[in-house]
Amino acid sequence: MIKKLINEIVKKNAPIVVGLDPTLAMLPGALLPEEGLTGEAYLNAVGEAVFTFNKKIVDATCDLIPAVKPQIAMYEQFGIPGLIAFKKTVDYCHEKGLVVIGDVKRGDIGSTSAAYATAHLGTVGEGIAPFDEDFATVNPYLGTDGIKPFVDVCKSHDKGIFVLVKTSNPSSGEFQDRVLSDTGKPLYELVGEMVEKWGADVTEGDYTNVGAVVGATYPEMGKRLREIMPHTYILVPGYGAQGGTGADLKNFFNKDGLGAIVNSSRGIIAAYKNEKYAGRFSEENFADASRAAVEDMLEDIRTNAL
Amino acid sequence: MIKKLINEIVKKNAPIVVGLDPTLAMLPGALLPEEGLTGEAYLNAVGEAVFTFNKKIVDATCDLIPAVKPQIAMYEQFGIPGLIAFKKTVDYCHEKGLVVIGDVKRGDIGSTSAAYATAHLGTVGEGIAPFDEDFATVNPYLGTDGIKPFVDVCKSHDKGIFVLVKTSNPSSGEFQDRVLSDTGKPLYELVGEMVEKWGADVTEGDYTNVGAVVGATYPEMGKRLREIMPHTYILVPGYGAQGGTGADLKNFFNKDGLGAIVNSSRGIIAAYKNEKYAGRFSEENFADASRAAVEDMLEDIRTNAL
Repeated sequence: MIKKLINEIVKKNAPIVVGLDPTLAMLPGALLPEEGLTGEAYLNAVGEAVFTFNKKIVDATCDLIPAVKPQIAMYEQFGIPGLIAFKKTVDYCHEKGLVVIGDVKRGDIGSTSAAYATAHLGTVGEGIAPFDEDFATVNPYLGTDGIKPFVDVCKSHDKGIFVLVKTSNPSSGEFQDRVLSDTGKPLYELVGEMVEKWGADVTEGDYTNVGAVVGATYPEMGKRLREIMPHTYILVPGYGAQGGTGADLKNFFNKDGLGAIVNSSRGIIAAYKNEKYAGRFSEENFADASRAAVEDMLEDIRTNAL
Repeated sequence: MIKKLINEIVKKNAPIVVGLDPTLAMLPGALLPEEGLTGEAYLNAVGEAVFTFNKKIVDATCDLIPAVKPQIAMYEQFGIPGLIAFKKTVDYCHEKGLVVIGDVKRGDIGSTSAAYATAHLGTVGEGIAPFDEDFATVNPYLGTDGIKPFVDVCKSHDKGIFVLVKTSNPSSGEFQDRVLSDTGKPLYELVGEMVEKWGADVTEGDYTNVGAVVGATYPEMGKRLREIMPHTYILVPGYGAQGGTGADLKNFFNKDGLGAIVNSSRGIIAAYKNEKYAGRFSEENFADASRAAVEDMLEDIRTNAL
């Protein structure tokens, strides 16, 4: 699957992914559920609204981008109807030829991780793919036997994962940056080394189907991790709204211009609310604002990061 | 919420929780979907079967136990119909007066953790609880700003969480046991100290609404963590099928006989497949076998652990 992702990145000259992480506050008024709905009717209306919002953004940007990254928490918070919207979004993005990275950050003991891997990347019954993403993000806290079932499904179903190594949030250092007494190196480096090892079993060309998540907000650590994980694709969140800039991203790429894919969520999908675009695009043209924001992000990355 | 859980534990003299983690292999033949179903019809039939299985086990054991712990991965692997079965299970257990610990192991950056906290413990719209568990398990890898939104919802909605500290699986030590150079102590102790801190803001009596997950398979570490986290309830997985025994559990309890709740999943819900019970209970009496297994577990814990 990493080969397919790389092909799409190269074809579109676009090492970026659009995070489909809608909140109600991002939705244009016209899409919001009517007043007075309660219970299931409210959740159903929200699910429909979220899917419509995503669909328009995907329609407006799919020729420019290789991939999308729906964040499942944003859907899960609207219960079953929210998760139906998640699945419809995955399916629609596939129809449009996009690679789908399910940002699910799952991870558990072996037998349970196997169930999560099946849910998001595998199949049950006679080839039924429950959620059917192409990649999933995975949490490493439980160690190898929490990761291995995902790697197995990557192999059997040609899928990929991105393992959290150094996350983009302010407090990511609390545990991830702690220096280990035996190696004198921070925990995230050990996790990075393990990611490179886990991937050795699922290599496709120069890269493996086991990627890493490293936040744009920590470019120096990104540089070090880039060295430690030469065959690992890095999914880079934290660009834009979280503070990372194009110049911060140089460190995440290999010399071949590959090796990293940069995510932007709010900066793209809520662009029409940003003063930079609000003057040019009205609320009903929110998807065109998203397209303009994708073009600007590409310009920034092509100019400053590659 | 921890107060409610403790009350139920004391009332039933039962510091245990039944893990509702069904796999298809555990279901009696009579409950399995008919042959030849495909696609949504298959998933719907599986969802129904899983819910029926849970319902019978809950009916047969609810007077003996304070709580259940459905593992969402086992439902998520059957897509939307699986998650409908999860929600129906949560609702049914509430009807039966049980405390529900959603074993979801979620965790992300702040704004995303807030969405997960809403999904499992909070409400959207006019008081709609999307999944409506009483407790959720949470992964600490992202640090305080991934945990804080859960603690906020614990406060606003009287709920609780259990944070992964030292998990029960064989490879949990790969990262969790690494000794930190500044403290000379393993990572799991630091996480344990943080759990105690996070909980200080949501205290109810002697304990807080921020609990910890510590595996029965690591009793010596459990002893140390019991000291480090005096106000923290410990959810103890790994009893039974994973290898932990009643005597291993002593270390997880405080002197007040409280402070720990021990989970068993397979050992209870698939008891009828265990040779210990298979002679006494036929396949159709699987729920009675579960009741017998609960009684034996209680006997073991009351005798050897308290």
